[in-house]
Amino acid sequence: MKIIIINGPNLNLLGVREKSIYGDSSFERFFAELQKQFAKAELHYFQSNIEGDLINKLHEVGFSFDGIILNAGGYTHTSVALTDAVAAINSPVFEVHISNVYAREDYRNKSLLSKNCVGILSGIGLQGYTLALKYFLELKG
Amino acid sequence: MKIIIINGPNLNLLGVREKSIYGDSSFERFFAELQKQFAKAELHYFQSNIEGDLINKLHEVGFSFDGIILNAGGYTHTSVALTDAVAAINSPVFEVHISNVYAREDYRNKSLLSKNCVGILSGIGLQGYTLALKYFLELKG
Amino acid sequence: MKIIIINGPNLNLLGVREKSIYGDSSFERFFAELQKQFAKAELHYFQSNIEGDLINKLHEVGFSFDGIILNAGGYTHTSVALTDAVAAINSPVFEVHISNVYAREDYRNKSLLSKNCVGILSGIGLQGYTLALKYFLELKG
Amino acid sequence: MKIIIINGPNLNLLGVREKSIYGDSSFERFFAELQKQFAKAELHYFQSNIEGDLINKLHEVGFSFDGIILNAGGYTHTSVALTDAVAAINSPVFEVHISNVYAREDYRNKSLLSKNCVGILSGIGLQGYTLALKYFLELKG
Amino acid sequence: MKIIIINGPNLNLLGVREKSIYGDSSFERFFAELQKQFAKAELHYFQSNIEGDLINKLHEVGFSFDGIILNAGGYTHTSVALTDAVAAINSPVFEVHISNVYAREDYRNKSLLSKNCVGILSGIGLQGYTLALKYFLELKG
Amino acid sequence: MKIIIINGPNLNLLGVREKSIYGDSSFERFFAELQKQFAKAELHYFQSNIEGDLINKLHEVGFSFDGIILNAGGYTHTSVALTDAVAAINSPVFEVHISNVYAREDYRNKSLLSKNCVGILSGIGLQGYTLALKYFLELKG
Amino acid sequence: MKIIIINGPNLNLLGVREKSIYGDSSFERFFAELQKQFAKAELHYFQSNIEGDLINKLHEVGFSFDGIILNAGGYTHTSVALTDAVAAINSPVFEVHISNVYAREDYRNKSLLSKNCVGILSGIGLQGYTLALKYFLELKG
Amino acid sequence: MKIIIINGPNLNLLGVREKSIYGDSSFERFFAELQKQFAKAELHYFQSNIEGDLINKLHEVGFSFDGIILNAGGYTHTSVALTDAVAAINSPVFEVHISNVYAREDYRNKSLLSKNCVGILSGIGLQGYTLALKYFLELKG
Amino acid sequence: MKIIIINGPNLNLLGVREKSIYGDSSFERFFAELQKQFAKAELHYFQSNIEGDLINKLHEVGFSFDGIILNAGGYTHTSVALTDAVAAINSPVFEVHISNVYAREDYRNKSLLSKNCVGILSGIGLQGYTLALKYFLELKG
Amino acid sequence: MKIIIINGPNLNLLGVREKSIYGDSSFERFFAELQKQFAKAELHYFQSNIEGDLINKLHEVGFSFDGIILNAGGYTHTSVALTDAVAAINSPVFEVHISNVYAREDYRNKSLLSKNCVGILSGIGLQGYTLALKYFLELKG
Amino acid sequence: MKIIIINGPNLNLLGVREKSIYGDSSFERFFAELQKQFAKAELHYFQSNIEGDLINKLHEVGFSFDGIILNAGGYTHTSVALTDAVAAINSPVFEVHISNVYAREDYRNKSLLSKNCVGILSGIGLQGYTLALKYFLELKG
Amino acid sequence: MKIIIINGPNLNLLGVREKSIYGDSSFERFFAELQKQFAKAELHYFQSNIEGDLINKLHEVGFSFDGIILNAGGYTHTSVALTDAVAAINSPVFEVHISNVYAREDYRNKSLLSKNCVGILSGIGLQGYTLALKYFLELKG
Repeated sequence: MKIIIINGPNLNLLGVREKSIYGDSSFERFFAELQKQFAKAELHYFQSNIEGDLINKLHEVGFSFDGIILNAGGYTHTSVALTDAVAAINSPVFEVHISNVYAREDYRNKSLLSKNCVGILSGIGLQGYTLALKYFLELKG
Repeated sequence: MKIIIINGPNLNLLGVREKSIYGDSSFERFFAELQKQFAKAELHYFQSNIEGDLINKLHEVGFSFDGIILNAGGYTHTSVALTDAVAAINSPVFEVHISNVYAREDYRNKSLLSKNCVGILSGIGLQGYTLALKYFLELKG
Repeated sequence: MKIIIINGPNLNLLGVREKSIYGDSSFERFFAELQKQFAKAELHYFQSNIEGDLINKLHEVGFSFDGIILNAGGYTHTSVALTDAVAAINSPVFEVHISNVYAREDYRNKSLLSKNCVGILSGIGLQGYTLALKYFLELKG
Repeated sequence: MKIIIINGPNLNLLGVREKSIYGDSSFERFFAELQKQFAKAELHYFQSNIEGDLINKLHEVGFSFDGIILNAGGYTHTSVALTDAVAAINSPVFEVHISNVYAREDYRNKSLLSKNCVGILSGIGLQGYTLALKYFLELKG
Repeated sequence: MKIIIINGPNLNLLGVREKSIYGDSSFERFFAELQKQFAKAELHYFQSNIEGDLINKLHEVGFSFDGIILNAGGYTHTSVALTDAVAAINSPVFEVHISNVYAREDYRNKSLLSKNCVGILSGIGLQGYTLALKYFLELKG
Repeated sequence: MKIIIINGPNLNLLGVREKSIYGDSSFERFFAELQKQFAKAELHYFQSNIEGDLINKLHEVGFSFDGIILNAGGYTHTSVALTDAVAAINSPVFEVHISNVYAREDYRNKSLLSKNCVGILSGIGLQGYTLALKYFLELKG
Repeated sequence: MKIIIINGPNLNLLGVREKSIYGDSSFERFFAELQKQFAKAELHYFQSNIEGDLINKLHEVGFSFDGIILNAGGYTHTSVALTDAVAAINSPVFEVHISNVYAREDYRNKSLLSKNCVGILSGIGLQGYTLALKYFLELKG
Repeated sequence: MKIIIINGPNLNLLGVREKSIYGDSSFERFFAELQKQFAKAELHYFQSNIEGDLINKLHEVGFSFDGIILNAGGYTHTSVALTDAVAAINSPVFEVHISNVYAREDYRNKSLLSKNCVGILSGIGLQGYTLALKYFLELKG
Repeated sequence: MKIIIINGPNLNLLGVREKSIYGDSSFERFFAELQKQFAKAELHYFQSNIEGDLINKLHEVGFSFDGIILNAGGYTHTSVALTDAVAAINSPVFEVHISNVYAREDYRNKSLLSKNCVGILSGIGLQGYTLALKYFLELKG
Repeated sequence: MKIIIINGPNLNLLGVREKSIYGDSSFERFFAELQKQFAKAELHYFQSNIEGDLINKLHEVGFSFDGIILNAGGYTHTSVALTDAVAAINSPVFEVHISNVYAREDYRNKSLLSKNCVGILSGIGLQGYTLALKYFLELKG
Repeated sequence: MKIIIINGPNLNLLGVREKSIYGDSSFERFFAELQKQFAKAELHYFQSNIEGDLINKLHEVGFSFDGIILNAGGYTHTSVALTDAVAAINSPVFEVHISNVYAREDYRNKSLLSKNCVGILSGIGLQGYTLALKYFLELKG
Repeated sequence: MKIIIINGPNLNLLGVREKSIYGDSSFERFFAELQKQFAKAELHYFQSNIEGDLINKLHEVGFSFDGIILNAGGYTHTSVALTDAVAAINSPVFEVHISNVYAREDYRNKSLLSKNCVGILSGIGLQGYTLALKYFLELKG
């Protein structure tokens, strides 16, 4: 199975800011652990701060990958274009948020993406990626 | 570990209605499978259509259990009382929805409960309970 | 034909309060007259102030009765759980209100139930139950 | 007793469009059946697509008829002028809708007329007119 | 004089949670002190987490008691049914909130009950019950 | 000077309904008095319940009359078409309302017409027409 | 008859600003003309930029004067206190605005005062005061 | 092919008002040019200020014409009845606006008609009718 | 203990208007009774219709008095400046309303002040001041 | 004449998804046909999923091209930056949408771009580009 | 150059409250420093808690001073009258806020004044006055 | 000190459009003057129309520079991603707008960025950058 994790804006700063919350491990290091833990699957990773690059990547992988785990960061709440991209592709998209977006500002309570996603998971930190992977690899198959 | 699944209104009809979606298995049968799959944990199950009974149960288990998986059904979107109950207890509550509530009517887009829950998961059917259990038993420990 | 009238919160006070409007007859006495008038049908009656009890009753009768006449009182405007129950069962539900709910407070203008009901009738007092019965017994058959 | 049915815009197309729903009978034919069924009453019928003509007709019959059954179609949701006309006349007005207006677009959820009507009935097809007639002829007398 | 204090959902947890705020005294102990302080009056106490039980109790006492002190907890902001119950009974109802509900979440700023209550008091802790009792026993008589 | 009073829907019922407010005089009789009082001016009167007829009349007089006094009744609050007609013509339009529209339902608080009118006057009964006439005949000239 | 004109904030600048609109005459000069034109009445004038002074003046004259002409300027749209003052006094209050407030910013479309006033007049410049005086002196008597 | 242009309220004033924008040509003259330019098609024209007449005309042509070009003027933004008429007929309706309605008042930003139209075109003056004709005659065939 | 009662706009009219409600006693007379009843405390009274004077008084007493009882009248619902003043001082402020503000117009449902007050009491007439005094003198001490 | 078609996010997927609607032709192939059909004009084409690239392209061509046909896809409804870009350049921009955006989700009903565009066309598929080209090449010249 | 700093309600408490933020220096002392720093300019200072006094002062200085620095405190968000005063005078007004008003309560996010001010500056403490002075004295001249 | 000015979309067109407002100087030339004026500081400049590039630049400089002056153009009002970037970095960000954004369209009244910025300045043209620099170099140090 081919699965990709796509991270949106500001998620490249993990490990640099707010270390007391996430530890001093960068997402790259966390991703390496995931690759070890789910060695039987082919795992990919992509991050960009540019909305259109995320759309391009979704187009590129969205007709051949078995699953997409998407954390669109701040674009989650504003991007109709990203919403359309998720709707246009064939691969199932699992929406993940590290923090509990429903416990934060009002404008984070609404995700434009969710209606087009197969699953939505929020609030449990980096483990959200792990659970989403388990969904694709252990439950859905 | 002691974990309880609490289901709210109308979830007792699983297996009776909409069989094409969920199969003809009742939640009780699904719960039995979960107990087998996670044999090392002590799993409990409670269902009620009465808002206050759900609150009572949360009070009863909320100071001693290791995790609560809560699908409050229609009360999710309207019950300040249930929201207060989740905030008042000590055990972590994981909010689960079988369907993608963000792809349905507007009034299902907003969960009052979410801000007080440790995790929120929506859209992947009965597997949502499985993933939430994995969170408590495999990841969080 | 088996028809049940289900009355929600505060409707047990008919005949006690506001006698100038409804006379000093209780709903029980009115129901007895309905049973005489529609003797060929099997009429049932249920009242509860508890939201979940109304849901339980809908579940109980909703797969075998020929018609349900539902006056959910104040839950009409707030209960997603009751709305879901009406949607989940098979028996047709006819929504009835004694007063003209559209001529009262704003929050009574919107019924969450209506979209799932076969008919909605408001404003003509206790005769609303009579007309709903006529629908099931004289028109629909 | 003198009763009039007043139909608003587009209701002249019954029997022409959406035959699968209403059959190939026009409202005129349905009205003829009503006249036979309620032979003891003097039944009238009026239809117009023009808002002001409906107001004129309400003025004309509103001080002498025993009952008015009004389906104002699309003007239901937008016409303050029609609302004022219903309020200005003496005859009781019964508001009827063929479809369940609460299960359709948001802007059909709100009737400006309802607060001034003696009864409001929605969702049971052409039988709505029959029930409203029964109200005036069998219950109210 | 017969006065009853009716407490709604989660108020049974007083003394268990947030001890730093309310001390380690339960509401039962506080109520015992009230009974001593106002020995000349007949004081009753009722608590339930079930909306319909609160309505039932209001019906039961609402035609014979001299005063009702109601803290409906989370139902304050959502229950039309409870609002109707307060309106339907004869005994005057005094609405009390322990915390300052206007300094908390937006959805706690609006009480559906208030318009039907004789007095509304918020923010001064358990003393709110004391002041409401003084109103019934010292001022109103 | 040529002035026309244009009355909209339901204003033809003056003198028939609500006699305690306006007396048993019809608008025609009131208009005859106005003609006597302002004998030097050429006064016209037009009433229709049909929105489009009001527009037609505005087009007809709106390029030659010295003043138009318009009471558009219920169309005041809903008609963009009438608003456009007032904007399209050359004659100054004075908006008059018999009752105090700001003390009634919310939907009567907003007039679509007002922004295109030279003056707006509300609340002083039939004298509103008199004052508007004085504006055109005594003040403006 | 005793009539007072009360002008609110910024209306003391008439004649200083925007001379092309109102001429270079101050309100004092205009008021002198009014006194000449309506010599039989006792006319008073008061202006203040201070909300509470306007309330004080309303209290002072509101139980003995025959009419009050009030242009509350910017307080029109924001002052509940002024609205209460108008409701508390006995003298009839006529609300006047020099400009067409409905053709300006949205927040000027709503007057809090209007519901408690006997008449409301907007848009015809300083002549609005003249017309309001005619109402008290020529029509109402 | 049979095509009709239907113009709503105030569009009969073209050529009379705002000549600097549209020239001194009336719509009739412009229509004559269209007939010459598209000589192979059978072009009809209808204008009315009366909402119901527009509905009547839609009913009349809506089951036999090949295309309808509709500029409903001010009714565009307010008429549910017209919206229903467009939905009820078979002929495709192309919505045209002369001005850019999205650059004007807020209440012109929303057309109730658009969702039932085959195409919507706004902003390019009388050429909008030409383009719509080209759609029916050159592209769609 | 030093306590001050601060009354806002229009409360100086007590005893003059609406005598059927409050009797013909002015607030001054009521205040004299309070001074007798709570002779052990040093009671002060201040009233102004001017928003800024209320703020000045709050500043003057707010760092030395033991309690402030504030009925800000119409400013309650509109004054951010008064809200800021309550927040800036040290003395606890108890908000009192004579009428039930929640049973009146919508704009009276929201108090800007409440969030900064130690207690909020509404609906029990002049006795509200008495209860607030009891709070400061009998309960809080 | 130099005309450019600028397509926004996800429009590069034409011909890949939803073939039953648009055929299996890509936009490139459709564009080639347009070039043949309008051989006398110099036609350009640009597509990007990146908002800022669309702005850059508008800057590049917006001071020298004779016309721009812009389908901004999902950015239509969210991008103030794109709106500013359209306002800043000199070339006229014609907004085109393939589907009827007014018949889809609410958030697609509002285009931020429209107010700055010379024309807006929606709903007629790829022919929208053809009509817009006809506007620039056949009508406007 | 003549410049005045006008401070609104509660700003007279600087140095008394919240010393940890602003130090124990009063605004008067800070103002004295400003006078020293900008010795070449004629600096004035005015503070009032009364809305109308602020308007009076604006009228007094607004036709002769070279610049006005206005911190209207809580009136910023509610006062249409102050907004009108700023619009009515000739001197340029620079709006200053000590705290970041956009990071506080929602009702502080909107300044009614801003649209009529030459500059708006928020968030940098007392230095906001300094920067505004630099604007008038160093940049603008 | 190291300071960077970051300009967002369309700000590269300064000097090309609207020359009557800003002169024919480009931002580059203005920036050169700033460098001369503040020679002791190390000034940088970056402009991009791409939202993600602005985020990347903020990440790059946001942990080492002494100050960031950010004019995010149209992204100011829509970009949650940019808001998050400002919050994630350490360097203080000063938000600047050339025009008075509060005097323009409603959607420009709200900046998502402001709550995370140290200062916000709007309305005084290019001098806004100068004042912000003075803040970092003259006041803050």
